[in-house]
Amino acid sequence: MAQRHLDRLSGLDVSFLTNETSSSHMHVGAILVFEGPPPSYTDLIAHVHSRLHLVPRFRQKLSFPPVPTSRPYWIDDPTFNLEYHVRHSALPSPGSEEQLRRTAARIFSQQLDRTKPLWEIWLVQGLTRGRFALISKTHHALVDGVSGVDIATVLFDVTPVPQKLEPDGPWLPNPEPSGAGLMARDAAGLAQAPIGIARRVEQATRHPRRTARGIAEAAEALGQVSWSFANPAPEVPLNVEIGSHRRFEWVRTDLGHFKKIKNACGGTVNDAVLTVVAGGLRIWLQNRGIRTEGMELSAQVPVSIRTDDKQGQLGNQLAAIRGPLPVYVGDPVARLGVVREAMDGIKESKQALGAEVIARFNDFAPPTLLAEAARINFSTRLFNLVVTNVPGPQLPLYMLGRELQDVFPVGFLPANHALFVAIMSYNGAVNFGLLADYDSMHDLDVLARGIETSITELVEAAEEALVETVDEEQPARA
Amino acid sequence: MAQRHLDRLSGLDVSFLTNETSSSHMHVGAILVFEGPPPSYTDLIAHVHSRLHLVPRFRQKLSFPPVPTSRPYWIDDPTFNLEYHVRHSALPSPGSEEQLRRTAARIFSQQLDRTKPLWEIWLVQGLTRGRFALISKTHHALVDGVSGVDIATVLFDVTPVPQKLEPDGPWLPNPEPSGAGLMARDAAGLAQAPIGIARRVEQATRHPRRTARGIAEAAEALGQVSWSFANPAPEVPLNVEIGSHRRFEWVRTDLGHFKKIKNACGGTVNDAVLTVVAGGLRIWLQNRGIRTEGMELSAQVPVSIRTDDKQGQLGNQLAAIRGPLPVYVGDPVARLGVVREAMDGIKESKQALGAEVIARFNDFAPPTLLAEAARINFSTRLFNLVVTNVPGPQLPLYMLGRELQDVFPVGFLPANHALFVAIMSYNGAVNFGLLADYDSMHDLDVLARGIETSITELVEAAEEALVETVDEEQPARA
Repeated sequence: MAQRHLDRLSGLDVSFLTNETSSSHMHVGAILVFEGPPPSYTDLIAHVHSRLHLVPRFRQKLSFPPVPTSRPYWIDDPTFNLEYHVRHSALPSPGSEEQLRRTAARIFSQQLDRTKPLWEIWLVQGLTRGRFALISKTHHALVDGVSGVDIATVLFDVTPVPQKLEPDGPWLPNPEPSGAGLMARDAAGLAQAPIGIARRVEQATRHPRRTARGIAEAAEALGQVSWSFANPAPEVPLNVEIGSHRRFEWVRTDLGHFKKIKNACGGTVNDAVLTVVAGGLRIWLQNRGIRTEGMELSAQVPVSIRTDDKQGQLGNQLAAIRGPLPVYVGDPVARLGVVREAMDGIKESKQALGAEVIARFNDFAPPTLLAEAARINFSTRLFNLVVTNVPGPQLPLYMLGRELQDVFPVGFLPANHALFVAIMSYNGAVNFGLLADYDSMHDLDVLARGIETSITELVEAAEEALVETVDEEQPARA
Repeated sequence: MAQRHLDRLSGLDVSFLTNETSSSHMHVGAILVFEGPPPSYTDLIAHVHSRLHLVPRFRQKLSFPPVPTSRPYWIDDPTFNLEYHVRHSALPSPGSEEQLRRTAARIFSQQLDRTKPLWEIWLVQGLTRGRFALISKTHHALVDGVSGVDIATVLFDVTPVPQKLEPDGPWLPNPEPSGAGLMARDAAGLAQAPIGIARRVEQATRHPRRTARGIAEAAEALGQVSWSFANPAPEVPLNVEIGSHRRFEWVRTDLGHFKKIKNACGGTVNDAVLTVVAGGLRIWLQNRGIRTEGMELSAQVPVSIRTDDKQGQLGNQLAAIRGPLPVYVGDPVARLGVVREAMDGIKESKQALGAEVIARFNDFAPPTLLAEAARINFSTRLFNLVVTNVPGPQLPLYMLGRELQDVFPVGFLPANHALFVAIMSYNGAVNFGLLADYDSMHDLDVLARGIETSITELVEAAEEALVETVDEEQPARA
């Protein structure tokens, strides 16, 4: 999607601004671990500069029109200063991964400045074994985990030798619009809105069947969302008032493990991910002395919705389903069975599309309405935590000739949500990034170790099942 | 002064809270450079822990009573976590002083969390020549640069071998008061207020002459402040809207230089400090293409007011005078003459006491009034920047056996003030810490180098004057 000066934010993107508070930040990002030696700060600045034209939004800032009910614009930042956005830091000795996580947690505890382009990249040197890290932090309004292109993404190459991607000429910012100019543009935008709707109606006339089906599915999906409201998520210490500070833990695992689980027990990789997160939460809850009998937690699972016809649709195509986390089930294979059955039912019921309908509605609502609409999405009544599983590339990536070794995604905490589990696969690995509230989740490491234990249990069960299958297929010759 | 659970903030201390915004932070601190090797994080934590009982306020947090017109209390933080407040970081290679200043500026760009005790200490390793730094950051409401005791202060010893100062027993926090409890305490406080005033009246009866003199001086001083309002500070690019981000520069110099200037040209060390700051600002303004003919800037110069009778007085005894910065004078000795004459006049006119009267008034005003009163103190109409000169110890200090080599004080930026110059002497050195707004003061290094040039010029002029004096006293023998 083009990223032009004076583009207007989509409704969903505005909701990431209106829902942001001093304790609930709406930036996301990743910790990227590379083989060393680290590049110099000057070389990194030059590299970022050479690729910035690929992500014009990263030289743009927010401009709020004088009428507060209007959605803000993206405008070129005439005082853009790359050294502000790209920062250089280091780990204290010995440079452990624990120290890297702590540094990242501190960086993610600080809200981005809304008067500047909404991103930062930190070059962190001094990690053990000669490694270094990039910590990327971008506002959710600027990028989403599914369809968006982040600044970190464009820094990579698929070969050790960096590709030449310099722009044709120097970047020339458009002048900052005056308040009166934005007011006039606002009026024009309001006048154009009916045209957009008219175009949809026109399409409906030309493709009557597609539209009729779309309406039927949307109605069904909205029914599903109403049902969800009547079944609130259980009360657990994941849903408490949160502060502005964060903790971060990670879990490394292999894509091969999840394929083995899928082959032995069926279901999708997503089902297995929810199963081990539920297993980790079970261990964490029990460690806190909380009984898990009969308890099923709810995860909000963002998914990407892509329809055949993308015309007339704007912005962030993020949707969400309500995934089950049956913490009451101790046996890993039985737990996977419960998750799988529930997820199959959800897919049939088109609940996912329901969420997408809410998101699309946002596109036409002024921010004052959006604040309410987005609050519905983030309601603790609907889900206990976010679990998002983002597929990444299955080949090695390089930055300035250094191989990317690990990616750990970092989510965000909506109000009253003390935990966000983000999962990303890359080059044969599946890594979990656990972002949590600093004070209320002081025992986040118990959860991380619990997820590791659950993965091991499920993999062992899968291996046993596969051995049994082989035994059945090839009876032992006496 | 005792620092008890449920102490109420003084009026001036409340003003530091009410004046704080997301772009105008009210924390202060210092960069402390030590000879290496750095202590381990564990050793530093243990050391801070062993001295915390000397500054009880550093384990206390703010508690806001249910009635918003009441002043908040300090209460023990029952979830106090020392690892949150003491942080470990490092400089990227090569570990230059420029990188240390940049790291400190980033730390000072972030507002303290009001739900926790209002301080942080950062252990920063990796400074060149084996050195390390402590960066201390404390809210102005918790400590002031003159009479207050900061956490950093109690970490020092006057000998390389640390003194044993362990507390007698473990710290036991008082329980957090309920809203109802604070409400009751509020009512009691209101009832007690007249008693405090009554006691003053009683003292007035017993010491009629002292009170009469005090009233006369206060009246005279208030007249002086009114005069200041009629003479606004000139408009220069130091007084612009500021953002939340900071730059930091420093200037190292010797106390011997200032003594030489004093001996040759007269005046106080403070006069010489204002003279070289004015000289630096002159160079900075001219570098920006701004004409300095006839221009005199105004500095707010905080001073400590101590009277014989301290009874009945509470909190922060910080006062301020309006110091002249005659940037129109090119000749360093002539500039010092102008500063000296003006400062002598100010001392006679009791303008300093006037500021103290404003501060004392704050003690009895609810926060809603204070916000207005404190805004008067920080008005750009009165001064262009703050220049504060804090005398430090003239002997070497040690922390965990490591000698403190340099101290650079860090001030704060009131709204519409892009520069704060803090000066501190320590062990024969006089160091300038220049805190500035990141965007509007992009050329802060020009000012730092300008102050250095002005110091050199004034010292050379003083040396010439001293040689001439010697020549006059001892005529050359032919």
